[in-house]
Amino acid sequence: MSGPEPLQTLYWKEDSLYLLDQRLLPGRIRYRQCRTSADVGAAIREMTVRGAPAIGVSAAFGMVLAAREADRAGTGTGGLKRTAAALRGSRPTAVNLDWALRRMERIIESFAGDAAGELSAALLEEARSILAEDISTNRRIGAHGAALIPDGASILTHCNAGALATAGYGTALGVIRAAAAQGKELRVYLDETRPLLQGARLTALELIQEQIPAVLVTDSCAGYLFSAGKIDLVIVGADRIAANGDTANKIGTYILAVLAGRHRIPFYVAAPCSTIDPNVEDGRGIAIEERDPEEITTFNGVRIAPAGIEAFNPAFDITPAELISALITECGLLHRPCRAGLEYLLAKGEKEDE
Amino acid sequence: MSGPEPLQTLYWKEDSLYLLDQRLLPGRIRYRQCRTSADVGAAIREMTVRGAPAIGVSAAFGMVLAAREADRAGTGTGGLKRTAAALRGSRPTAVNLDWALRRMERIIESFAGDAAGELSAALLEEARSILAEDISTNRRIGAHGAALIPDGASILTHCNAGALATAGYGTALGVIRAAAAQGKELRVYLDETRPLLQGARLTALELIQEQIPAVLVTDSCAGYLFSAGKIDLVIVGADRIAANGDTANKIGTYILAVLAGRHRIPFYVAAPCSTIDPNVEDGRGIAIEERDPEEITTFNGVRIAPAGIEAFNPAFDITPAELISALITECGLLHRPCRAGLEYLLAKGEKEDE
Repeated sequence: MSGPEPLQTLYWKEDSLYLLDQRLLPGRIRYRQCRTSADVGAAIREMTVRGAPAIGVSAAFGMVLAAREADRAGTGTGGLKRTAAALRGSRPTAVNLDWALRRMERIIESFAGDAAGELSAALLEEARSILAEDISTNRRIGAHGAALIPDGASILTHCNAGALATAGYGTALGVIRAAAAQGKELRVYLDETRPLLQGARLTALELIQEQIPAVLVTDSCAGYLFSAGKIDLVIVGADRIAANGDTANKIGTYILAVLAGRHRIPFYVAAPCSTIDPNVEDGRGIAIEERDPEEITTFNGVRIAPAGIEAFNPAFDITPAELISALITECGLLHRPCRAGLEYLLAKGEKEDE
Repeated sequence: MSGPEPLQTLYWKEDSLYLLDQRLLPGRIRYRQCRTSADVGAAIREMTVRGAPAIGVSAAFGMVLAAREADRAGTGTGGLKRTAAALRGSRPTAVNLDWALRRMERIIESFAGDAAGELSAALLEEARSILAEDISTNRRIGAHGAALIPDGASILTHCNAGALATAGYGTALGVIRAAAAQGKELRVYLDETRPLLQGARLTALELIQEQIPAVLVTDSCAGYLFSAGKIDLVIVGADRIAANGDTANKIGTYILAVLAGRHRIPFYVAAPCSTIDPNVEDGRGIAIEERDPEEITTFNGVRIAPAGIEAFNPAFDITPAELISALITECGLLHRPCRAGLEYLLAKGEKEDE
């Protein structure tokens, strides 16, 4: 095959990382070429690439570019720590960014060679592994999660936890994809997900490509759908899961969990184990990114709201563990996530890696 | 004074009803001239004018125009029933439309004169009464409701239940206005209210004009705000209140009521008694209008979602009475609205009218 598949989230080619510019979808398909680690940081901040797993993979390639910059400048590995810190700060909530960067740092710390180019070659190999593992991890999440999806299910999802949020296949949408591949008839309600409309733009696109019946609704419609008995289960992704199971995900997720609880409908979170952050006790310890108020007050450059209005734009909220029916990971399902269960999952994951 | 006040929702002048075109706010201030009853029906359907009380008043003037059309055509009052039925069907959920039309029909039924122009003059007088009463009703709602708003309160509201949703002053926003006029320091969080953004466009405008501190958020943000302890009370308007207190209001209202219940925060509904529909037993009997899916899939004429995606766009949802802390009407407050309480309020209202 020549060139990337259509709608591949990212790929590495001839010394550059290419990121599908997700801000332009579905109208335009354009890849942003990142030649430097600073380019990658800017692309993450500006949400050219988004989705917790995808930004982790992108940051890994950012470290490859940083090592090549150090090779060319002959500055050694000293500056790489600063680059990692800068990439780590490009978006504060998703922990996968930190997880991928720590994997790259371990390569740097254990590196014993000294020929120029050897370290960057080792880092490129690691970044490629992270990318390939992300896709296989998602397929395993899909296989585990599909068991929870009954034939004929009507599913509500939020934002985009699909192929476009990952290196491929997707987490929450990967579960839906896996269930559909088993021949189950599904119907997906998808929240548009204001302000950046990742549901209306990205999830809609993926579901159309998969030919899975899908219905777009406003974020406000969820209450109506639950009341009308139209939803059998909710499935979403995650940006960071605290040690006790409290989960940060796209703003609005907590509302769906509360509604699911009230209506006694299962609420599932699908995410790789790299999303679990054992260093954060509970949801209160997760930093919530606040983004530019202009994401709300303007649309496609056109002002919506009157001049002078203040706006507040947190990008994530926290769903308490008690509202999560099950966490779906590549290592298996964890019903009613809790501290002990998450520790078991992480230990199991490490064992499988050995 | 010459001409209408800025941002008057509607006015009657020289044989026409003028409706502020709310679809163009806040960018442009333009009035749509309605010369015929059909013009009024189209303006209601197309949401040039919106808000349950405002569409009631508009429909009343629509009947004046219908009577004048009958005068000119010499067709008597026979066609007026059909016009009333057409106006009644222009938007199905808000009961104020039906209420105002019934008042106009009572004038027609009891009319004893026969000179051309006498009936239309009587109808014009009634429509003007409905308009004037709406404003005074809202001021009384404001006075009753202000007692529920503590000094320093941080208030969440949804959609626009302000002057622009009524003939003037507003219902939910009237309560906020009245509390501010008492010198209370307030902070209002306002949901943008997708798909038509009545919060971001209309409520934001009214609060800026009133110089009440206001913060615009996406509809999805409410859960975060409650979790962060930023909300002291919720106040919204209503489109129809069933005999048992179940309340139809803009889609998304039910979500706020569920969140308020979970976080033990008061949830208030402010509406005139004309919003109570004793003929509908409970929320299941309220017809929910479904609007054009294009309101979701496009924005300002620009396509957001990929071609081929289905969209579902109900305009209202039902909040069960059990989640409503108090109903605020012009006849007083009703804590924990229930069948007996609503009957008492309606009887009290009729007594006051005598």
